[in-house]
Amino acid sequence: MKLVIGDKNYSSWSMRPWVLLKHFGIPFEEVMIELLQPDTKASILQYSASGKVPCLIGGDGVPVWDSLAIAETLAERFPQHAMWPRDATARARARCVSAEMHSSFGDLRSQMSMNIRASWPGRGATPGALADVARIDTLWRDCLAASGGPFLFGEFGIADAMYAPVVMRFNTYQPEISAVAQVYVARVNAHPAVAQWVEEAHRETHRIPSYDV
Amino acid sequence: MKLVIGDKNYSSWSMRPWVLLKHFGIPFEEVMIELLQPDTKASILQYSASGKVPCLIGGDGVPVWDSLAIAETLAERFPQHAMWPRDATARARARCVSAEMHSSFGDLRSQMSMNIRASWPGRGATPGALADVARIDTLWRDCLAASGGPFLFGEFGIADAMYAPVVMRFNTYQPEISAVAQVYVARVNAHPAVAQWVEEAHRETHRIPSYDV
Repeated sequence: MKLVIGDKNYSSWSMRPWVLLKHFGIPFEEVMIELLQPDTKASILQYSASGKVPCLIGGDGVPVWDSLAIAETLAERFPQHAMWPRDATARARARCVSAEMHSSFGDLRSQMSMNIRASWPGRGATPGALADVARIDTLWRDCLAASGGPFLFGEFGIADAMYAPVVMRFNTYQPEISAVAQVYVARVNAHPAVAQWVEEAHRETHRIPSYDV
Repeated sequence: MKLVIGDKNYSSWSMRPWVLLKHFGIPFEEVMIELLQPDTKASILQYSASGKVPCLIGGDGVPVWDSLAIAETLAERFPQHAMWPRDATARARARCVSAEMHSSFGDLRSQMSMNIRASWPGRGATPGALADVARIDTLWRDCLAASGGPFLFGEFGIADAMYAPVVMRFNTYQPEISAVAQVYVARVNAHPAVAQWVEEAHRETHRIPSYDV
């Protein structure tokens, strides 16, 4: 199995399935393609006609693109791992918060784009981005209150992987969040798979100047 | 089971689970909340803390918001219906195209917003929106070529429901699309559940002036 990803410093969508696979100890070959290079598109097209990362290439050679589709497909192919909660009601809720992350929070994405190596406290704090932060804070608090933690639905799973890039953004831009959310941020940062991704992002030498300004 | 939706004329996200439930003959009570009214938010909050439509309230009273999470949850609760393709490879691909619809095509959404009663050929044809149209055309052609049709993965399912609002947009704005895509558009328009939604959109009396200009 191969996972095609973008730069670890910048590619928030790539981070999700990578962290998920690492957490559950599923072996995979990583193919990193630097983003925004002249040959980026051509390189990705070698793996997937979608031209997008992340892309999972299963044993059958068929590409599965899109972070949420990869997560659902992995959950189905590895039923021995509780990637979604085992309880049906919790699972429906986990799908809701994951799908909301997947389609929403446009202001957060554009104003506080993921840049793991950067530290820009207070930047990007537009009303729209702060409304997204507030909504995420509420979602996290509701999930943690219902599950009892330590992760959104108890043990680490797809919903946490979907929000891991948000944690990276909160590290960089440091918007005000609740105490409960701060504890969750610290917990995600300390998660071994997340910590490994972050460490590897720091070791990358490729820079995208327009993202680093 | 209740499905909370917005105006049929405008609420593209609501159309998806409604059409899906109708197609598979699953009984549900419809709760329509007019969008952009002073009490819209309060009305939705009676059903779901998310404040969003669509929202499915199952027999357990627990709200499932977000169109894609509703689709996955229905697929799981009604395994007797092939909402996703039965073949695992086709299912992974159906999830990819559905998830791509769910997170992408921002230009199409903003430039060619759903307004079933309107006919505005040529409007909204920005380069970004046309690039989205071209990508969707490619996706449809690839799916139809692989499945043999008549719908994206053979029989009507979640992927078709996810793209039904795009068909509505193509009716209104009439961007140039391939012959294969035109045939698919005609087929979706003729689908009984889609035709019923459209007919009911035409019978609505509530208007949102800012959407109708």
